[in-house]
Amino acid sequence: MLGARGGWRALRRCASLPRAVRLRVREALGAREPADAVRVQGWVRSVRSQKEVLFLHINDGSSLESLQVVADPSLEKRDLTFGSAVEVQGKLVKSPHRMQNMELQAETIRVVGPCDIWSFPLKMKERHPLEYVRQFPHLRCRNNTLGALLRIRSEATAGIHSFFQDNGYVHIHTPIITSNDCEGAGELFHIETPREAKESAEKTHFFDVPAFLTVSGQLHLEVMAGAFTHVFTFGPTFRAENSQSRRHLAEFYMVEAELSFTESLQDIMQVMEDLFKTVTSTILSKCPQDVELFHKYIAPAQKGRLEQILKHKFMIISYSEAVEILKQAPQTFTFKPEWGCDLQTEHEKYLVKHCGEVPVFVVNYPYDLKPFYMRDNEDGPQHTVAAVDLLVPGVGELCGGSLREERLPFLESRLQRLGLTDTYQWYLDLRKFGSVPHGGFGMGFERYLQYILGVDNIKDVIPFPRFSHSCLL
Amino acid sequence: MLGARGGWRALRRCASLPRAVRLRVREALGAREPADAVRVQGWVRSVRSQKEVLFLHINDGSSLESLQVVADPSLEKRDLTFGSAVEVQGKLVKSPHRMQNMELQAETIRVVGPCDIWSFPLKMKERHPLEYVRQFPHLRCRNNTLGALLRIRSEATAGIHSFFQDNGYVHIHTPIITSNDCEGAGELFHIETPREAKESAEKTHFFDVPAFLTVSGQLHLEVMAGAFTHVFTFGPTFRAENSQSRRHLAEFYMVEAELSFTESLQDIMQVMEDLFKTVTSTILSKCPQDVELFHKYIAPAQKGRLEQILKHKFMIISYSEAVEILKQAPQTFTFKPEWGCDLQTEHEKYLVKHCGEVPVFVVNYPYDLKPFYMRDNEDGPQHTVAAVDLLVPGVGELCGGSLREERLPFLESRLQRLGLTDTYQWYLDLRKFGSVPHGGFGMGFERYLQYILGVDNIKDVIPFPRFSHSCLL
Repeated sequence: MLGARGGWRALRRCASLPRAVRLRVREALGAREPADAVRVQGWVRSVRSQKEVLFLHINDGSSLESLQVVADPSLEKRDLTFGSAVEVQGKLVKSPHRMQNMELQAETIRVVGPCDIWSFPLKMKERHPLEYVRQFPHLRCRNNTLGALLRIRSEATAGIHSFFQDNGYVHIHTPIITSNDCEGAGELFHIETPREAKESAEKTHFFDVPAFLTVSGQLHLEVMAGAFTHVFTFGPTFRAENSQSRRHLAEFYMVEAELSFTESLQDIMQVMEDLFKTVTSTILSKCPQDVELFHKYIAPAQKGRLEQILKHKFMIISYSEAVEILKQAPQTFTFKPEWGCDLQTEHEKYLVKHCGEVPVFVVNYPYDLKPFYMRDNEDGPQHTVAAVDLLVPGVGELCGGSLREERLPFLESRLQRLGLTDTYQWYLDLRKFGSVPHGGFGMGFERYLQYILGVDNIKDVIPFPRFSHSCLL
Repeated sequence: MLGARGGWRALRRCASLPRAVRLRVREALGAREPADAVRVQGWVRSVRSQKEVLFLHINDGSSLESLQVVADPSLEKRDLTFGSAVEVQGKLVKSPHRMQNMELQAETIRVVGPCDIWSFPLKMKERHPLEYVRQFPHLRCRNNTLGALLRIRSEATAGIHSFFQDNGYVHIHTPIITSNDCEGAGELFHIETPREAKESAEKTHFFDVPAFLTVSGQLHLEVMAGAFTHVFTFGPTFRAENSQSRRHLAEFYMVEAELSFTESLQDIMQVMEDLFKTVTSTILSKCPQDVELFHKYIAPAQKGRLEQILKHKFMIISYSEAVEILKQAPQTFTFKPEWGCDLQTEHEKYLVKHCGEVPVFVVNYPYDLKPFYMRDNEDGPQHTVAAVDLLVPGVGELCGGSLREERLPFLESRLQRLGLTDTYQWYLDLRKFGSVPHGGFGMGFERYLQYILGVDNIKDVIPFPRFSHSCLL
């Protein structure tokens, strides 16, 4: 968001400008000195007309807080309503109210764009439930909760880029359209051109081979880690799972990183933990009001929990320990916990609760459960790979990572058994030319937001909840 | 990339660590003080064995420059070759060479991953042409030119995020899968699930309606500008044009921004110009060596040109003036210039040359040439809209933008004439609830990189040139 710098530079220009200086609401609210000729634009959030004075609150999306405008009742107009767009010119003065720093004494009020309040689905001073505003994907961002959410999402995005930038990672745009299915990580969306869609019989492909929407940039990132040592990507990924779950989306964002010259899973987990803590601290310090809204109205206990989590090291247990904990659990599960079986949502929930409702790393999963690229731990008889999942309360799996198999013979025999040698010839190739121990991880961005803000439905942390309603923008 | 801070923090840890401190090559090269126990990992870029001394250059992708390692010939091993991955431990000392700050006196050299040099397509000390390395999408990033390019691309990405962040814009992830075709901005890719692909007859859609890959996030951004005033997005966009041109890609990145409360095209142009200049200055100051490589070997005249461009205001001409210039041109064009016709590549080239090979804004295009959302200038008889294109030498159109039609009656009658009222009901809706003058623009990210670095083929500025070769990763 706008720093103080922008605002003061704007104020300094004030003297030489023929017209009043334009300030964002956030700048006006944060101004340290009164100013004579100020112009603020935004949308009316409330109108209160008294005998002696007219009060407006205007908001331009630069902050959750609106700016109070105080005006002579003679300035009131018929179309000066909730939802209308206005330009107010006047004096910025210290507010007599304890809760607000500055207010604007209006000299002129211009209605730039009126609002048809009878058909406008948002109502003045009403706290609309998230399910209600989800019906209006083109208007819900003017709701306080969604506004706060998208400002936080924006800061989190910037925070992720800064974290990796500050730590010497090169950012890579991994392909969205790809022929690589990342070894069945999920159901794929196919791509076709209009011509192909028509010629449904014998198809010719635009790209010569079948092309899909990416499910992960990992394998591409591994290529790049072989040149830049530390790389990351942060972009959209896709799963064609027709799920109405509150945890799944067809289109979602993933942060992925790969690190060369990394011999221990511990190092990968350290980066995951640092990323989580750094970005979370950034959000808490940059959007305190926005986060407060969630921790006050959506998930009241989350604030204290987050503070605790930021102070302590994340817990680490092995998959084998996890299975033992589950076996000794006093409750019965739908899926009986057994070494060699996947952890189900019910298991993850129990583990997180057992550990005290904090983030928990689970490491060293069964060899047979995991994809070919994960590094063989060469242990036994319970054969495992160096994989890690980060489980968090309420959301389940937030991150997944592993050491990658850098040894050509191990990879060759594994791909051969799977009949994938031809498909992954280029991946084997990488192991011939200066292959080094390496590893990486991915973090689901929407699940991260869900977790820190305590938002129940994943559709409420994306800008356009298009896949849940007929109104597909 | 890694700041000095990371390096010095690392060096301070040195004393308490049992093992030598790990430094990136960039940190080692930039160190201000010698250090005793240092560990550097990377890939060998050259090996020179003399009677008394063994010289290595190792690179880890953190900088274009490699670190010189000086060792006793007894440390040489059979598999210590070009392309192999090594870990070198030793003393970091001032280099006696004028061109290098520091060098590493090796105490131990460990070959972490050998390289099969006979089948490795990159050769020691060879400057491979870009066309050659394009054949090896999984290895070409270990080439100097591509390494430099991807570091610049990474810095440019960070620079774009910072520019908007510093100026109070909210970042929005606009949808990749959408039902909105942005009014025929180009050929669309269709999305289908595997089941749909099989049931080629009567199709049922995953999303209930046909879904495409986005060609622009503009309309979604406009929604958000109606709440946050200033918003931007920076993500992948798609065109199913099967073009082998050096200017087109099926998948490319676009920076897009929308600004509410903006009444003049001039304001939009100012943001475009500021964005261009800020990001370019960032790159020049953050990756001087990487940029130098391009300005030395790829486009020798580009350096001086860029410096000039950064100092001067961009030129502005109207479309009508442009047509007059073209009509008076001494050369004959394949497409005869005529008011009301699109500017062709040959026209753009001539205009840019006519203006002195600098960036040129062309404004106010014919009403009938442009999409429905551009703002009617209400002029005549040559009826125009408030649209702008930024043309640059060598590349052509780099940015496009316009004021958007915020007036409900204008938009209604235009959509009715086009038979698009139902499709864009939600877009009309936005004009009923506090609609304000606004505008925005988009900039092609790959074209931007092509232009500042003087790279001829757009396929050389993306991480994976997948659409030009059979090796689709």
